[in-house]
Amino acid sequence: MEYTKPLAKLIEHFQHLPSIGPKTAQRLALHVVKMSENEVKNFASSLIEAKTTIKYCEICFNMSCESPCEICRDLTRNKNIICVVAETKDLMAIEKTNEYNGQYHVLQGLISPIDGIGPDDIRVKELLYRINQNDIKEVILALNPSVEGEATSLYLGKLLKPFNIKITRIAFGLPLGSELEYADEMTLARALDGRVEI
Amino acid sequence: MEYTKPLAKLIEHFQHLPSIGPKTAQRLALHVVKMSENEVKNFASSLIEAKTTIKYCEICFNMSCESPCEICRDLTRNKNIICVVAETKDLMAIEKTNEYNGQYHVLQGLISPIDGIGPDDIRVKELLYRINQNDIKEVILALNPSVEGEATSLYLGKLLKPFNIKITRIAFGLPLGSELEYADEMTLARALDGRVEI
Repeated sequence: MEYTKPLAKLIEHFQHLPSIGPKTAQRLALHVVKMSENEVKNFASSLIEAKTTIKYCEICFNMSCESPCEICRDLTRNKNIICVVAETKDLMAIEKTNEYNGQYHVLQGLISPIDGIGPDDIRVKELLYRINQNDIKEVILALNPSVEGEATSLYLGKLLKPFNIKITRIAFGLPLGSELEYADEMTLARALDGRVEI
Repeated sequence: MEYTKPLAKLIEHFQHLPSIGPKTAQRLALHVVKMSENEVKNFASSLIEAKTTIKYCEICFNMSCESPCEICRDLTRNKNIICVVAETKDLMAIEKTNEYNGQYHVLQGLISPIDGIGPDDIRVKELLYRINQNDIKEVILALNPSVEGEATSLYLGKLLKPFNIKITRIAFGLPLGSELEYADEMTLARALDGRVEI
């Protein structure tokens, strides 16, 4: 038996979303059929609204309905420090810590020669422009500890050196609450490497 | 920082779907913003199409755009055997085995006194009517091995006894490829209990 056609189509749409496999897609689609018509209509219009109203901030390339975005317009935030992240979701993760009160710069990607993504394909030019035009005292690189994140950090580190500003990178090491015994070797090596005096 | 409003709304919609937590909901919503406008529109209309066109088959209560559904209309299928399942997704799982060629009956739920769901809240009446009106030779109960599934199987077993038809239940036991050593006690007990002569 094949799925009835509109259901098959909906399952396929769900399956195209990240981290949704065929079983979950089926469960979600069957759930939608059981939702009230009103709920489904609201969901559908919310999809379209999000897609059509959310743009990128022209300063930091964060997702926002307005440009400049809420963060760039916020006068209470420190204008002299920029935290560089790969994606809006990383920005959100840092905002949730409530520990950071500076600006952001969303690269919208990472350098990845294997995928053919070079420095010109991400928002590096725009970062340089911001540093040139503003009184920036520190750039924090908050990129994933992956091959691409490391490559991009290295590249940006070299590129920003001539500006004579403080360039830092977030710390990699043991996550809090974890046990040394169960840490993988790479993490432990980085933790050792990044040891600080007490 | 709060999410920009349309994004927050979309994240909330995703979060209402089953098995989608706040992190996944955020990832899905950010993904939608990155999809092409056309893709998002197709997704949205597919949601509404599935909701508005899919009804339940008046015979077996399977989800379908037409009533009777594809399975009930299929003349090549055995009309003398009914497999009783709780939900359309269980029907789909059995269909995927390609091992069954009879009819189905979707109860649209299971008896669950804790949740206040009794035999009248699920499609039991309609099952009795079908058995009365048609020449049914066997009823297979294919309900989950849960408390509710067991209760419903027990109830249906008693209810159908007077009809003098064959009533069977799918086998519970060790899943294929599993190891006896790692099976939980309940499964192992059921496997022992359901032993068959060879």
